[in-house]
Amino acid sequence: MKILIALFFTLNLVAAEPADSVMKKLIHEGLSRGEAFAMLSELCLKIGARLSGSDNLERATLWGAEQMKRMGFENVHLEAVMVPLWVRGDERLKITDSPNARNKSLNICALGGSVGTAKGGITAEIIEVKSFEELQTRKDEAKGKLIFFNRPMDPTFVSPFDSYVGAVNQRGYGAVEAAKVGALGAIVRSMTMANDDEPHTGAMRYDTNYTKLPAAAIGIKSAEFLSDLLKKEPHLKLNLELGCKILPDVPSANVVGEIRGSERPDEVIVMGGHLDSWDKGQGAHDDGAGIAHSLEALRLIKASGLKPKRTIRVVLFTNEENGVRGGNGFATVVRPNEKTIAAIESDAGGFAPIGFSVDSSEVMAERLHCRAGKALSQIWADRIVVGHGGTDIEPLKKKYGTLCIGLRPSPHRYMDYHHSNSDTIDKVNPRELELGAIAMAMMGYVLSEYGVE
Amino acid sequence: MKILIALFFTLNLVAAEPADSVMKKLIHEGLSRGEAFAMLSELCLKIGARLSGSDNLERATLWGAEQMKRMGFENVHLEAVMVPLWVRGDERLKITDSPNARNKSLNICALGGSVGTAKGGITAEIIEVKSFEELQTRKDEAKGKLIFFNRPMDPTFVSPFDSYVGAVNQRGYGAVEAAKVGALGAIVRSMTMANDDEPHTGAMRYDTNYTKLPAAAIGIKSAEFLSDLLKKEPHLKLNLELGCKILPDVPSANVVGEIRGSERPDEVIVMGGHLDSWDKGQGAHDDGAGIAHSLEALRLIKASGLKPKRTIRVVLFTNEENGVRGGNGFATVVRPNEKTIAAIESDAGGFAPIGFSVDSSEVMAERLHCRAGKALSQIWADRIVVGHGGTDIEPLKKKYGTLCIGLRPSPHRYMDYHHSNSDTIDKVNPRELELGAIAMAMMGYVLSEYGVE
Repeated sequence: MKILIALFFTLNLVAAEPADSVMKKLIHEGLSRGEAFAMLSELCLKIGARLSGSDNLERATLWGAEQMKRMGFENVHLEAVMVPLWVRGDERLKITDSPNARNKSLNICALGGSVGTAKGGITAEIIEVKSFEELQTRKDEAKGKLIFFNRPMDPTFVSPFDSYVGAVNQRGYGAVEAAKVGALGAIVRSMTMANDDEPHTGAMRYDTNYTKLPAAAIGIKSAEFLSDLLKKEPHLKLNLELGCKILPDVPSANVVGEIRGSERPDEVIVMGGHLDSWDKGQGAHDDGAGIAHSLEALRLIKASGLKPKRTIRVVLFTNEENGVRGGNGFATVVRPNEKTIAAIESDAGGFAPIGFSVDSSEVMAERLHCRAGKALSQIWADRIVVGHGGTDIEPLKKKYGTLCIGLRPSPHRYMDYHHSNSDTIDKVNPRELELGAIAMAMMGYVLSEYGVE
Repeated sequence: MKILIALFFTLNLVAAEPADSVMKKLIHEGLSRGEAFAMLSELCLKIGARLSGSDNLERATLWGAEQMKRMGFENVHLEAVMVPLWVRGDERLKITDSPNARNKSLNICALGGSVGTAKGGITAEIIEVKSFEELQTRKDEAKGKLIFFNRPMDPTFVSPFDSYVGAVNQRGYGAVEAAKVGALGAIVRSMTMANDDEPHTGAMRYDTNYTKLPAAAIGIKSAEFLSDLLKKEPHLKLNLELGCKILPDVPSANVVGEIRGSERPDEVIVMGGHLDSWDKGQGAHDDGAGIAHSLEALRLIKASGLKPKRTIRVVLFTNEENGVRGGNGFATVVRPNEKTIAAIESDAGGFAPIGFSVDSSEVMAERLHCRAGKALSQIWADRIVVGHGGTDIEPLKKKYGTLCIGLRPSPHRYMDYHHSNSDTIDKVNPRELELGAIAMAMMGYVLSEYGVE
């Protein structure tokens, strides 16, 4: 800590930063005439959830390009990629033979990418485990049953994102682990600490060496009900029916627009979020907010009369949730005579920004703090730490060594809504959203002025 | 900025701070077994709004003492004070003679402390002004009319609390300014930037030199409707009827409990919030949150096994909203052989804490940062700035020079709910609330360990 402060102090004396008046323009424009919330409202209320391959995502793609043109971005165009198409059908988890809860339905939703069941579903006993290790120790019991992965997120992390990281393997790999022990399906406790019963979907994987089992998320209250009931009736049977299916890939596109740099147009800073969402709620925080942030950040720079030295390119990525085809596709496009030096992604919600996470060294984080920290501190968004940049921009780092930076909004409420019907526009505060766009604009502008050297 | 950083750097090398492991206990206890949200839920859902003099506030007082006893606080007792009793009655603002909106009712509520109208109300034309200066220039027009104070909060401040400060004179003194020009009543745009139509009440004053006029807050959408209509029909008439009245003072009490200091029990740190609220909503953020924060902060210290050197005293103040009789009364009680060296108030909502505001010098703010900043940074609550401490603790500063400190939660949503029916428990996030209590516990513990010298 003390070493970092000393370093900060030293660098602060030598590093250039934009004039205070320049950064204040961004704040004033955003807070007086900001458009982030109006854009997000349109996306959520006129279009809604935007699963890859859906008509809604196609409408959102056209909407995104329209917004860019309306705001005078340059070189607005679509970059086509193929995306997976997974569709949800009817789905149900019902207790069939309990004396206490016969025919009671529990709140579930299929995990994204799950195979469906045969018509009529799977009827079987269920065993509850807290970890893959526990499942291994009970593998003789598990055969022919459903597996109920019920390890809660650890609440003792300050950031629920850390709690999420510690629990999400159940969602991602539960079906594979269940298949390894000869089980018939996986029911996974929703990745949330909200005290409600909304099931939270999300990506899952299969391993080609094992049977593809159907997998669903279960709401927290349903999970707790089931867990309590199993203590009394360890042999109760449930019927799981999932109508979801995987269809052939379909076309989609990233939406791209920019302001060309006035001095070094060949050096590019990408700002983006992902336009697709799960098929639950409205994809407001995940990641309509990132779309609104990115569009609005470049609008703020333009409307404030700033002329970036380097090119700032906004990218609305497709298919982050179940394939990252947008991010991978974007990094694959050959762009002669230019270099994407930095990329900023917003994919952690539309809450008040607290800083940025930099996928690089402590020295780079400190350098960015010296450039942008003073401006960001005016909106209390100056916590610049080393960490994950963003899923859609990571392929740029891998391919070109692009410096990847993630916006970090206040994380406390995000997992309450994430991937569920709760992720709707009424959970977004207009000023908090706008402040996120202002933070993106500040960071984008600083990178366009000074580069990353 | 650079000077402050240098100062911080220097002080950081010499100032003692509690061991990291001690502060981590508070975080762990709060996030794993925190009770702040459960307490606030009880207060909001079992009791509800708690206007001074109401049965609800009396029930809340007993509840507060009960909580303290349940958690093993010492010397739990009530300290009686008399409080004002103002009661709301039926209330209405109706357009009477417009061709476009005849008999349309607008959403209003009486301002706290307003006199009522005679039965049948006041029927008069209304003029809209944006400032007291504008009213003065139009005083010939104003006589015999209602005055509509419609200056919005300036959205360009990063903190809505600053926007509030720039607009709230309309609520506080609008009725007096209206009386000065011979008007009949005051209608004041609600102090909020929320895009809804909830009227927000709040305190107002009279000047004994002028007639006491009835005064009401109007919801934002109603205010904008009225403003638009007045442009077309400047002579439209409205009927304002308020059934509120001021009754004689009644008894109430501050609720007090503590942990005695192990080494210097005669030096006291107060932690508190106010138990009363307006009669709208449930007083969840204002200031049920401060009550939950204060009770929980001391519980956290006890449950973490910490033995404060100085006495930490929790005070649930009565009557902050319309009289500050609780705060004034508390400072008046003679407490022989002891000194209240510091006081921390939480009265800015239950959102994620970002820091503290210290009613003292920059040097004191820096000193507190050196003591507590490292611990607070773990929960991103280390912004310690010079500013207002708290309304209930300010009398302690005036009388004894007590160091006054206010918890600063994220301010962006507070004014959306403040003093209105929107201020309910569903607007509070359990983890954000708990983090506020943890921040209070950290600051309280540091003050109890090191004092204020």
